[in-house]
Amino acid sequence: MNIGLIGLGKMGANLALQMKDKGLDPIVYNRSSEKTMSFINNGFKGALSLEALVEQLEKPRVIWLMVPSGETVDLLIDDLMLLLDSEDLVIDGGNSNYKDTIRRAEKLTAEGIKFMDIGTSGGTGGARNGACMMVGGSVEDYSAMEPVLSGLCVPGGLGHMGKSGSGHFVKMIHNGIEYGMMQAIAEGFDILKASSFDLDLAGISEVWGNGSIVASYLMDMTTSALKKNPELKGIADQVDSSGEGLWSLEAALEFGVPAYVLSAALFKRYESKQEERYTNKLLAAMRNEFGGHAIHREGE
Amino acid sequence: MNIGLIGLGKMGANLALQMKDKGLDPIVYNRSSEKTMSFINNGFKGALSLEALVEQLEKPRVIWLMVPSGETVDLLIDDLMLLLDSEDLVIDGGNSNYKDTIRRAEKLTAEGIKFMDIGTSGGTGGARNGACMMVGGSVEDYSAMEPVLSGLCVPGGLGHMGKSGSGHFVKMIHNGIEYGMMQAIAEGFDILKASSFDLDLAGISEVWGNGSIVASYLMDMTTSALKKNPELKGIADQVDSSGEGLWSLEAALEFGVPAYVLSAALFKRYESKQEERYTNKLLAAMRNEFGGHAIHREGE
Repeated sequence: MNIGLIGLGKMGANLALQMKDKGLDPIVYNRSSEKTMSFINNGFKGALSLEALVEQLEKPRVIWLMVPSGETVDLLIDDLMLLLDSEDLVIDGGNSNYKDTIRRAEKLTAEGIKFMDIGTSGGTGGARNGACMMVGGSVEDYSAMEPVLSGLCVPGGLGHMGKSGSGHFVKMIHNGIEYGMMQAIAEGFDILKASSFDLDLAGISEVWGNGSIVASYLMDMTTSALKKNPELKGIADQVDSSGEGLWSLEAALEFGVPAYVLSAALFKRYESKQEERYTNKLLAAMRNEFGGHAIHREGE
Repeated sequence: MNIGLIGLGKMGANLALQMKDKGLDPIVYNRSSEKTMSFINNGFKGALSLEALVEQLEKPRVIWLMVPSGETVDLLIDDLMLLLDSEDLVIDGGNSNYKDTIRRAEKLTAEGIKFMDIGTSGGTGGARNGACMMVGGSVEDYSAMEPVLSGLCVPGGLGHMGKSGSGHFVKMIHNGIEYGMMQAIAEGFDILKASSFDLDLAGISEVWGNGSIVASYLMDMTTSALKKNPELKGIADQVDSSGEGLWSLEAALEFGVPAYVLSAALFKRYESKQEERYTNKLLAAMRNEFGGHAIHREGE
């Protein structure tokens, strides 16, 4: 089996490297030919158009998308549907919304094209050396791909979650939990930093990474970040979020499930991105109205 | 060096077993003689009174407390002060409040007795096979004990945090973070459970435990719990808390540091223990007052 890998961003590029290491010999394609060429120049097979990619693949073809979620995926699938035959398999390994995935699976399977969603975790290091993959799709497709997928995952880090969409759904909740765990760690270190003990924060996260109850991949990443840059100099206090934290909460609202920590973690990220914290202005104005409490003037 | 180990509860008993495995040959003492005798009958050295314990120890003596936090520690320290000599070392390996620890360190060192606080993490398994220890106290005492302590910890799981109290302070924040991480995981699984995908929750936590961003000791424990009892049958929906989550928030309030996730996690535990959720009654009554919305009657 050869695999057509579409998308050579941070995750796709590392997955391509891992595939090559593991003898899968992927044929890579990227929207910008420059990136594809740099892979070709490094010994990869590549294609400069979707048509050329599809032509080079053995039937039944396997095409693995590793591209940003949203419209990009829909446009690619529309293009691929014109080129692929029934029994070919399209894998979406990105962070698509699971509802989009369900819709796309219906569209493709109506044409006889197989579809599999893979939630991919482990970051760029996981994509490079061994990831964690949550797979949605038919049992048959999963069984057929299992030998390939297990080679790309750490031992135990691969599972069939259920029907189409379940891979991306489980990955979405994974990211929701990730936000909450990260916020818990960050708040704890904020209290440590405020204490008068003059603590070595990198040293603490390193100790916690070994044998404690909070030992985790995220604690190891905290250690790594604090060792590189103990004062976090030059890092703005703004935290972006991709879609999964939001979608996790949309699911919580849809199902009527409370999610205090997951929502607090997402809202703290939103707050970090607010240029003007209007809430605080209004609170200060209210205190001034009813109690004559002083207002801090801008620029003070 | 022989060590007098006081307290044979869940943590102390496992630590005693690990000490013996590692050739430390502890002399054990427990308030109830029955437990001490069971250890003596299993080949441990033991003492049936504090006096007998102190008598059997080589000078300078090392006494390691592994007892419930609070008054028990104060009473033991008062008794020990009558028996110990200057240069002897008392270690508090339990979950004492760091402010108590600072007070006790001052009291003991005024008499020339050394004191060291150790925050011990890793649960009973860690105490048995290799723990994570956060140590507060003087550099000299830490250096003297380091060979013994590192033998009881997993590699990298030992550190000197700073002066007296810092070991327990860092362990306290560790537990605050632990509450937040646990709540994040539990909320995520609540959403997974509510979905229509009919997911294998134990299978998911197991996959997440291998190579994902949320891989952690807590995820492994989640897997273990869900494998044993997938429906969590017989487990009441009540979560106790020991002191550290509360103390972490007290520190946050004292230092003026926001801690949304840590407070939400603690308050959810408090809520789980409420026999009557008065908040909900009052909200229902308010809705009825202003909008005539139906009230559910008790027993309905």
